[in-house]
Amino acid sequence: IKVTQVRDDVTEKWPYRHYMQKEIYEQPTAIGETLKELIHPAYRTISIRQNSAGLDLATIEDITIVACGTSWHAGLVAKYWIEQLAHVPVQVDIASEYRYRASPMRKNGLMIVISQSGETADTLAAMRYAKQGGLQVLGVVNVPESSIDREADATLHTYAGPEIGVASTKAFTTQLTALACFALAMAKAKGVLDAKQEQGYVDELLQLPAKVEQVLIHDASLEAIARELMHANGFLFLGRGTCFPIALEGALKLKEISYIHAEGYAAGEMKHGPIALIDEDLPVVVVAPQNSLFDKVVSNVEEVKARGGRVLMITTQGQAAGRIPADYTIPVVPCGEFVAPILYVIPLQMLAYHIAVLKGTDVDQPRNLAKSVTVE
Amino acid sequence: IKVTQVRDDVTEKWPYRHYMQKEIYEQPTAIGETLKELIHPAYRTISIRQNSAGLDLATIEDITIVACGTSWHAGLVAKYWIEQLAHVPVQVDIASEYRYRASPMRKNGLMIVISQSGETADTLAAMRYAKQGGLQVLGVVNVPESSIDREADATLHTYAGPEIGVASTKAFTTQLTALACFALAMAKAKGVLDAKQEQGYVDELLQLPAKVEQVLIHDASLEAIARELMHANGFLFLGRGTCFPIALEGALKLKEISYIHAEGYAAGEMKHGPIALIDEDLPVVVVAPQNSLFDKVVSNVEEVKARGGRVLMITTQGQAAGRIPADYTIPVVPCGEFVAPILYVIPLQMLAYHIAVLKGTDVDQPRNLAKSVTVE
Repeated sequence: IKVTQVRDDVTEKWPYRHYMQKEIYEQPTAIGETLKELIHPAYRTISIRQNSAGLDLATIEDITIVACGTSWHAGLVAKYWIEQLAHVPVQVDIASEYRYRASPMRKNGLMIVISQSGETADTLAAMRYAKQGGLQVLGVVNVPESSIDREADATLHTYAGPEIGVASTKAFTTQLTALACFALAMAKAKGVLDAKQEQGYVDELLQLPAKVEQVLIHDASLEAIARELMHANGFLFLGRGTCFPIALEGALKLKEISYIHAEGYAAGEMKHGPIALIDEDLPVVVVAPQNSLFDKVVSNVEEVKARGGRVLMITTQGQAAGRIPADYTIPVVPCGEFVAPILYVIPLQMLAYHIAVLKGTDVDQPRNLAKSVTVE
Repeated sequence: IKVTQVRDDVTEKWPYRHYMQKEIYEQPTAIGETLKELIHPAYRTISIRQNSAGLDLATIEDITIVACGTSWHAGLVAKYWIEQLAHVPVQVDIASEYRYRASPMRKNGLMIVISQSGETADTLAAMRYAKQGGLQVLGVVNVPESSIDREADATLHTYAGPEIGVASTKAFTTQLTALACFALAMAKAKGVLDAKQEQGYVDELLQLPAKVEQVLIHDASLEAIARELMHANGFLFLGRGTCFPIALEGALKLKEISYIHAEGYAAGEMKHGPIALIDEDLPVVVVAPQNSLFDKVVSNVEEVKARGGRVLMITTQGQAAGRIPADYTIPVVPCGEFVAPILYVIPLQMLAYHIAVLKGTDVDQPRNLAKSVTVE
């Protein structure tokens, strides 16, 4: 029996009002600790070490990612990264769906299972099903020695430390951090990432802790915006590319702790239905870093504004912010397109947090939810 | 120039109040007409003829389905069918996402594009992108001679006739019908469907028009339920397996024409967040035919009831209906598991229709929406 020592300072929330707030503010450290295990400090190269030694990434031809809730959103972002960088096809499935359907499994296939606790019942069952079918399994877990950690062929650990708030924050951004490193490792193993590219991406990752700090400074602005929007019955969150899953995650946070019916959508899908909902009572939060898709998103935002919607835009600070038709703007420090989803989720966490506090819900222990879902 | 003759009776809505209602009631005929082209009447076998002659299904090792809105939901159902029957892996993507990301394309890959109009801008662009990348393309369209029909390597036509209501109904069920036949054709080509199994599935399909009639008889009950639920600000729709996309579609219908914020979820995901929303103000519609997943869904429903939620359950008539903890039940005529999604969407169409009529919205021409989205 191994007794885990939990130091007092990790379970004490002071000076924060809630664990969720503390955990949002711990993200620079949590991301930094996670990177420490995945990046060689001297050479600034990806070095996925010990635990994943069992996998030969070069032989993998197909990846299936399975998870639930927030971890599923991390998997959706990873699909974009892995397909783009390593050119390996990735499918992402909800664990409770994957385990009950007849999924064809390919030779040389890898399953990645993502779970903060490492004990999520549906994810664990999906993993066992895939192992029986001959897939290799890589776990991404925050709790060492958890069931997934023990049963997976290899594990990427996130170093978020204990996460006590039910709504996941630092576990999510460290999952993304680990998966970003995995995508680079996969691209290296496939021989489609040269040393210069690798160093560019690694630099983006290494700058993350400092950039997250620069996003956290928008806390007061987000609290003020929360005060304006808190009475809405519903919200839409929109994004494209790697920020589409971030929109899903922003909506989930708001659902979980403020009990507001928020929904995430791929921005390009809005005109195929959800745009009918738009009026002054349904705020729209748009996650739109300045990148190759930015003009497309702006045109989606213009459609919303033309129909009387109120828009909060999370976008890159600087000139872009000036020409967007939003009611509220959170200007995010410039960053590479690769790491953008990790930075852009943070204002959404803070927005949900402040709305929940203003509404007076039990932020750390929202109704009906359990931290770790170990039943089906 | 080809002049299309549209007969008076197809553009006249009398004796129906709205085109959408007329089109809901046309589904037995529309499905029957679509089957006529895909099933050999004497031998009761799948016979995908003329237009798809260009494709050699036996050589296809991977399928990507791309579409928008309601057609995307049809693609999500098709994934379950094709993977289960033909054992060929399928990924489904939103057209506006697919076209802007670097999607690895496999050798011997097929893309299926689904669009009622055959002109949906994002879908058309995704199709052209995939053709450049070397994929073969199969279109599923309702409008002959449309751009997708002309540019695809092969086309499956649906015979829904002109669909005038903006919210798609008969186009969706005929898309499902065509895709069900495609899944069987694919399984035959792969040699994993024997003659007896084929006949069983074909029989299920051939019974559809009569069974749809038996679902339409619940119209008055659904109107009464609509009257009870019409004042809710939001709805959740839940389903598992092939009925998960049906839950998404039911939510989309309600959004489109009643402007109520409805969201679809995989029933197993509810405990990972959305369950926090549940109270007496958020009705939950559960799509749950009596099948191998039924008990799992009932346990999800019990969680909703335990938290004060109002539940409308669409389920198989007979003994199952007696032991479910729902406030309202629509008992659907028994059918095979294969065709269930096609039948089970119909009560959801009627529910959305009646709520919209009771709310006094413009059912056939809802605000902000266009019938065919030919711009990005």
